[in-house]
Amino acid sequence: VSQIPPHGPERRLLPRWAAPRAAEAAPEPVVVLSSREAADLALLGMGAYTPLTGFMDHDTYRGVLREMQAAPGVLWPIPITLAVHPVLADQLSPGTTARLALPSGRVLGRIRVQDRFRPNLLEECSAVYGTCDPSHPGVAATLRQPPVYIGGPVEVWDLGPVYDRYRHLCWWPAEARAVFETYGWETVAAFQTRNPMHRSHEFLAKCALMLTDGLFIHQVLGELKSDDLPADVRVRAVDALVRHYFPENRVVQAGYPIAMRYAGPREAVLHAIIRQNYGATHLIVGRDHAGVGRFYGPYDAQAIFRQLPKGSLAIQPLCFDEAFYCRRCDGMTVARTCPHDPAERDHISGTELRRRLRDGLPISPHISRPEVVAVLRAALGEPVTPPPAV
Amino acid sequence: VSQIPPHGPERRLLPRWAAPRAAEAAPEPVVVLSSREAADLALLGMGAYTPLTGFMDHDTYRGVLREMQAAPGVLWPIPITLAVHPVLADQLSPGTTARLALPSGRVLGRIRVQDRFRPNLLEECSAVYGTCDPSHPGVAATLRQPPVYIGGPVEVWDLGPVYDRYRHLCWWPAEARAVFETYGWETVAAFQTRNPMHRSHEFLAKCALMLTDGLFIHQVLGELKSDDLPADVRVRAVDALVRHYFPENRVVQAGYPIAMRYAGPREAVLHAIIRQNYGATHLIVGRDHAGVGRFYGPYDAQAIFRQLPKGSLAIQPLCFDEAFYCRRCDGMTVARTCPHDPAERDHISGTELRRRLRDGLPISPHISRPEVVAVLRAALGEPVTPPPAV
Repeated sequence: VSQIPPHGPERRLLPRWAAPRAAEAAPEPVVVLSSREAADLALLGMGAYTPLTGFMDHDTYRGVLREMQAAPGVLWPIPITLAVHPVLADQLSPGTTARLALPSGRVLGRIRVQDRFRPNLLEECSAVYGTCDPSHPGVAATLRQPPVYIGGPVEVWDLGPVYDRYRHLCWWPAEARAVFETYGWETVAAFQTRNPMHRSHEFLAKCALMLTDGLFIHQVLGELKSDDLPADVRVRAVDALVRHYFPENRVVQAGYPIAMRYAGPREAVLHAIIRQNYGATHLIVGRDHAGVGRFYGPYDAQAIFRQLPKGSLAIQPLCFDEAFYCRRCDGMTVARTCPHDPAERDHISGTELRRRLRDGLPISPHISRPEVVAVLRAALGEPVTPPPAV
Repeated sequence: VSQIPPHGPERRLLPRWAAPRAAEAAPEPVVVLSSREAADLALLGMGAYTPLTGFMDHDTYRGVLREMQAAPGVLWPIPITLAVHPVLADQLSPGTTARLALPSGRVLGRIRVQDRFRPNLLEECSAVYGTCDPSHPGVAATLRQPPVYIGGPVEVWDLGPVYDRYRHLCWWPAEARAVFETYGWETVAAFQTRNPMHRSHEFLAKCALMLTDGLFIHQVLGELKSDDLPADVRVRAVDALVRHYFPENRVVQAGYPIAMRYAGPREAVLHAIIRQNYGATHLIVGRDHAGVGRFYGPYDAQAIFRQLPKGSLAIQPLCFDEAFYCRRCDGMTVARTCPHDPAERDHISGTELRRRLRDGLPISPHISRPEVVAVLRAALGEPVTPPPAV
């Protein structure tokens, strides 16, 4: 089975994993990571950010903001940075090393400092998020950082608590590739989700699976929005869907500890690069992928792929509209293929669906499979209606 | 709107159309065309066979059989040949010209002879059809020909009776491209059919339309199998489907006067080249595309596209399984995305569907839309149940 190469000129995965080191003679300064930085470190550790080898230096950072390149010809849409306080930065002259730790003191790895610089955070927000509005959660997080970035290659010794908790889901890119090879899949569509999968998600995933050998459902396991469901509930709900409605040996589910930035189009490209590293050949890009509020047009994250330089990305986006059930069509469809009155649609918002789940109200099987609803109601402590016999 | 280039190194359409000539001083020999040759001449005339300029000489013919190339690097899967009797061939030395006419005497154009040769028809059948079994209709037609081929560029003066009858459907490639440009479509999926479109065809066409801007339904208007419906009935049935179940301005229907060869995989590649010339960026390739009987595996015509040299074809195949309605899935699906018992399927054969149409038996709306069934029953003289109001 020939596989898609990892991103970057070396065409091989570059995990930064190393055996943890005992404390060395000279004590090292400690940089305390934000949850976003800790998630980035874990992704560097597993090789999901191939070909990056660490946090970005000033040149790389500028290249990413201005040219969307981490090096000449190497597409990279979002800076991967490490912010420190100026007092600490003074100790971190190029050539020194520092431990990277969680606020709890748990050491995750080490950086060899190559560069320190004061980023232009407004330029960064404009380039990455398309806005400097602090009501955008990514902008707010960027502007909340200490004002110095340090760059340099990392060694990762520990992938952190998200990895510990979801070890069975947190496949490394090399593991996912080995699984795809075992199944004999030449083409794999990746479906990113931070939700359970309802009928609309199932429909888009199956549309992709009509064109590819396998489907890779990849759960977001990092920090989420407050109304997102816990990952283990989402995983069980997806398992129920797959067991009852997908063929055997065509679907695998895993997760990864990414922190959502809600950067819309640029984040969609980052998701594509990561999925290429995981061995997927296609990425499902839905309506308002990685968006938040009204900061992006619903198809901006699809349009950016058409504007990338040819050959900069081997993985292909599969761009889909939002799906719904139409009674006149007698099935699932999307606006671009359905001519009927919106009154014919069985379609409710995510907010309304959560309300119905919470309040024990009926949910049409056109909205969500009964087996999925049963898992979610059980998790929410609601009385469960048994699913129909298969 | 950027458009896909026509096939071949010149990247422009090469129609062979010319104003009809008055009879010249020296009378020319007349070659009487088979219906397949007349269809090929019309396709040459319109530029659908770009970059070919006429019937193939011996070198081109051998290159097509052995390398699937009409010239170095120019993919071409099926020989486009003109067969003549040895007695006539004796008059057609290289440099002479001949009129090309139908058995009725109607002159369609002219060839400037460059080459005449005795083809190895068994080698041709093996290469093109994968068999020399005369129960294959393409093999039978090949072996029935007179034993000399003449090659050389053609001029086309008249596109023939199929074109006359279906002028409104027989768009030239340049016309189709102009239509797509008017609609602003950058991506267009071509759907070849010699049937009315039932639910399964609608589903596959809509799956393609989820990925492309437009859908180009392209009817086969040349010689058909005996149980195929007349083209005008099929066109009306497709019109009814499009009017009731597809969005406005996303679908166009046209036709072309090709003669089916039933060459399976190689014919699928020919269909792709022709559709690229028409300006389509994608071709829907279904189960047993251009197949007949049990001569090809159901997915041979899809597999051949994966074996073509990279870059030899700009149009992309969209390879789909056979679609059906599954009651457990609660919608249309295909075997590769449905895990349920085949007993859950509403699925009948084409033969059974024709029997039900003919005998006035009920046809489930999961098999064919009532509006389509009404058109077909009306054409077959059956009592018509009015379609439901939209």
